[in-house]
Amino acid sequence: MDRTDVMGSGESMNRLLAIAAIGPDSLPPRARRLAEFSLFDWMVVARAGADQPVSAIIRDLLEKDGGTPVATVIGGGKRLPARAAALANGMISHSLDYDDTHFAHIGHPSVAIFPAALAAAEEEGCSAAEVRDAFLLGAEASCRIGMVLGRVHYQRGFHQTATAGAFGATLAAGRMYGLTPVQMRHALSLVATRASGLKSQFGTMGKPYNAGIAASNGVEAAALAKRGFVSCDDGIGGPQGFVETHSDGPDPEGPWADPPPQRFIFDDIKYKLHACCHGTHAMIEALGEVRRRRSIAPGDVKRIRVLTHPRWLRVCDIKAPRTGLEAKFSYILLAAMAMQRVDTAAEATYTDALCQDPGLGALAARVEVSGKEALSDTQCEVDIELAGGEHIESAYDLATPLPEEVLEAGLRTKARGLLGEATADKLWSAVAALDGVSARDLGALLRD
Amino acid sequence: MDRTDVMGSGESMNRLLAIAAIGPDSLPPRARRLAEFSLFDWMVVARAGADQPVSAIIRDLLEKDGGTPVATVIGGGKRLPARAAALANGMISHSLDYDDTHFAHIGHPSVAIFPAALAAAEEEGCSAAEVRDAFLLGAEASCRIGMVLGRVHYQRGFHQTATAGAFGATLAAGRMYGLTPVQMRHALSLVATRASGLKSQFGTMGKPYNAGIAASNGVEAAALAKRGFVSCDDGIGGPQGFVETHSDGPDPEGPWADPPPQRFIFDDIKYKLHACCHGTHAMIEALGEVRRRRSIAPGDVKRIRVLTHPRWLRVCDIKAPRTGLEAKFSYILLAAMAMQRVDTAAEATYTDALCQDPGLGALAARVEVSGKEALSDTQCEVDIELAGGEHIESAYDLATPLPEEVLEAGLRTKARGLLGEATADKLWSAVAALDGVSARDLGALLRD
Repeated sequence: MDRTDVMGSGESMNRLLAIAAIGPDSLPPRARRLAEFSLFDWMVVARAGADQPVSAIIRDLLEKDGGTPVATVIGGGKRLPARAAALANGMISHSLDYDDTHFAHIGHPSVAIFPAALAAAEEEGCSAAEVRDAFLLGAEASCRIGMVLGRVHYQRGFHQTATAGAFGATLAAGRMYGLTPVQMRHALSLVATRASGLKSQFGTMGKPYNAGIAASNGVEAAALAKRGFVSCDDGIGGPQGFVETHSDGPDPEGPWADPPPQRFIFDDIKYKLHACCHGTHAMIEALGEVRRRRSIAPGDVKRIRVLTHPRWLRVCDIKAPRTGLEAKFSYILLAAMAMQRVDTAAEATYTDALCQDPGLGALAARVEVSGKEALSDTQCEVDIELAGGEHIESAYDLATPLPEEVLEAGLRTKARGLLGEATADKLWSAVAALDGVSARDLGALLRD
Repeated sequence: MDRTDVMGSGESMNRLLAIAAIGPDSLPPRARRLAEFSLFDWMVVARAGADQPVSAIIRDLLEKDGGTPVATVIGGGKRLPARAAALANGMISHSLDYDDTHFAHIGHPSVAIFPAALAAAEEEGCSAAEVRDAFLLGAEASCRIGMVLGRVHYQRGFHQTATAGAFGATLAAGRMYGLTPVQMRHALSLVATRASGLKSQFGTMGKPYNAGIAASNGVEAAALAKRGFVSCDDGIGGPQGFVETHSDGPDPEGPWADPPPQRFIFDDIKYKLHACCHGTHAMIEALGEVRRRRSIAPGDVKRIRVLTHPRWLRVCDIKAPRTGLEAKFSYILLAAMAMQRVDTAAEATYTDALCQDPGLGALAARVEVSGKEALSDTQCEVDIELAGGEHIESAYDLATPLPEEVLEAGLRTKARGLLGEATADKLWSAVAALDGVSARDLGALLRD
C-alpha cells in the first residue's frame, strides 16, 4: 500500500520552519501571558513532583552517568548535560500528571517542551524570556502537528505529549542553540525517527517517561543538527515520514489554515485544578456543581450515569484501581470522590489506601460510564438517580475560557497547596517579571 | 476502532522472557558460532566506520556531554556512560551500512544489539562470552518480534533494525545487568514506548542513528528497570502496545511455533560482502555470475532488466544518486558498477564522484528495475538484452546457506580489505578464542 498520494508535500515542515523563525516582537501579548502561566504552573508541578519515586529513579541513573554540569535537574544536587537534564525534568515534571493540557493537541505541552528549552538555554546562557518564547513557539508547533496527526493517532495508542511533543521540543531547543533554517530542518526531520510514546504506559511510571523522552529527543536532535548532522529532507510530511507512518487519517493541510503569528492555537491551553487525568475534570466539575446546589447523602444515590467523549474510555476508565496513580485514571472512583467531597485537587489524596476505602468503593460501584459521540472531549454530562427515583442532571465544558485573573488565582492557589505560600509566591514573582531573569536563574529556582 | 481483539494476549512477552532466561549451556553450537561471526564482522565494520562524518559528530556531542567512563566508544579516546556509548557505537558501527542482515527480521541485528550488550557488559565487568550469548539471545528476540510485526510494519515505513532491534537490545543489556524476570518484563514493556525508527532516513546519517537509538534505548530501559522502574504489564502485545500501534497485520503467534532454544532463526543471518544496501546484493551476485561466464562490453548492452521483491523498491531504488551514500541505495548505478567490474566490496568505491561517472551513468540509464511478487526478498532475477537481440538471464538467492569455512574466509577477506591484515587477524584471533577474554578486552580492541 502506497500512502504517499494522500500526504501533503512538505506543508507541515515549511510551516514549522516558519514558526521557528518568528521573532519575539511578533508574539501576541495574550499568548505570551499564557506561556508565563504555563511556565509558572510547570515550575510548580515540577518542584512538587521532585520526590516522586520515578523522579528518584531517573536522578539516580543520570547522576551516576554524570557529565558536564550545564543544566539543572529538578530537585537534584548535580547539574548535568542538557540531554540528561531534559530527560529527567520531563519525567519529574510530569510525575504528578498535574501539568497543563491542550485538547486540540491532545497532550501536555509544558512537560515536553520546557525541559528541552530550559536545558538548552542554560547551556547556552539564554534569558528566561527567551525560554518562554521558545516554549510558546514549540508548544504551538506541537499543537499544530498534533492536529495534523489527528485524533486517530491518539486513538490508535500514541501519546501525543511525546510524539507531537518531540517536534515542539526540537524547535524550542533548536532556537536556544541558534540553529540556522537548514539545521532546523535537519533537526526536525531527524527527531521524526526518534519521536515515540504509547498510551499503554498510562497509570505507570512510563507516562512521565514519555514526557522526558520527548524533551530529551528534542535536545539531542537539535544538538546533532548544530554539529552538521544530515537527515532526510522532510521526515515529517514526506514519504514514509512521521505522519504517514503514525496516522491512519492525517489532516496535512487543515491545521495550517490560520498559522501563527496571526493565530496561536496555544491560547486554548488548559490548566489542571484537580490532581488527576484531565479527561476526568469535566465530570468532577459537573458533579461539583450539583454538590454545591444541594447536599446528597451517598446512601441516597441509586446510580450515577456519566457520559463522556468515547476516546476517554481508553484513557481514564480504570474500573478497579489499585494504586493512587491508577485512581487518577478512574472515572468511577473519582465520581465517588467528587460526591463525597474528597479533595481531588490535593496530590496527597491519591494513595493506594484510597482505592480500598469501602464507602468510596460502594458508591463507585454504582457509577456507569459511557461514551457519547456528540460530546466534545472537553464536555461531560452526568445524571444522578436518587433512591426515590429523582434524576439530577448537570454538564460542564472545560473549553469555556476563563479570565486571566481567575486563571492566575486558581494557579496560585494550586501552587500554595502544593508548595506552601512562600515558595509559591517566590516562583510567581520570578515568572511575573521575567525581564533580567536568566535561564540559569530559573534553573536555580527548581533546585533549591 | 478497537483492535485489541485481534491481538495475542501476552504471547510475545512471555516468549521474550523465556528467551531471556535461556542458560549458556542450552545454546546450540551452530548459533553460537554464527554469533561469533557476527561479533567479528561487527567489530570490523565498527572500526572501519570510526572516521565517518556521522561518527565524528556523535563522538563530539557525547564527549562534550562526558560522564562516568565505564564503556568504550569506538575510535574514541574517552570512555563514556553505557547509554552514551551504546548510542555512539550503534551509529558508528552502522555508518558504513556494511553489517549483518536478517531477512526474516528485515533488519541488522548486530548494530542494535552488540553496542547495548557490550556497553552494559563493560559497566558490569562481564566476560566476552557473556556478550556473545546475550547478543545471540537478543538477536533471536529481535528476529522473532520482527516477524510478529510482519512485513507490513517495514512496508509502512518502520525501520525494523531500530524498532524490533530495541527489544533485543533491551534483553541483551538486561542480561548483563542481571535483571530479575520481573525487572526484565518492566524493561521490555518500557522500551516499547521508546522504540522508534523510520526508513525515510535511508541514505542519510539518520539510518545509522536508528541503530544507535535502538542500542541506547535498550540500555536505558534495562538500567531503569534495574532501579525499580514500573512499566505496564505488557507494552508489546498488550492493548495499545507496540505491536497493535505499529503493525496493520501482525502475526502474534505464528513466529513462536518453534521457539528457541529448539530453533534459532538467527541461524539465517547473512553477512554483507558488498558495501551497499543488502537489498541490492542478490542483483550484484546475479550479474557477477554472468560476468564470470562471459565478457560483455558496456556498449553491447541494450537494456538490463532487474526483477526484485517489490518491498525493496521503497528501500534501494534511488534513480539519481548524488552522494556515495545514496549510491549504496541505487539499483541502477550498482547494476552498472557490477557490469563494469567496479569493486562493490570496497568502502572506498562509494564516493560522490562515482555518481558523476559518465560511463556508469550511461549504462545505469539502461537499467530497468521492477518488482515481482513471486520472488522472495532474498532473490533477484536479471535479464541482460544485448544490442544484437540476445538475452542473457541469471538469478541468485541470498538465502542459500554457505558452509562455515566459506563464511569465515569471506568475512576475513572483507576485514583485511577494510582494516589491513594485521588488525583484521588480531580481531579474528580474539573472537575465535573468547574464553578468558573480558568485555573490557573487546572494548579495548575497538579503541586502539
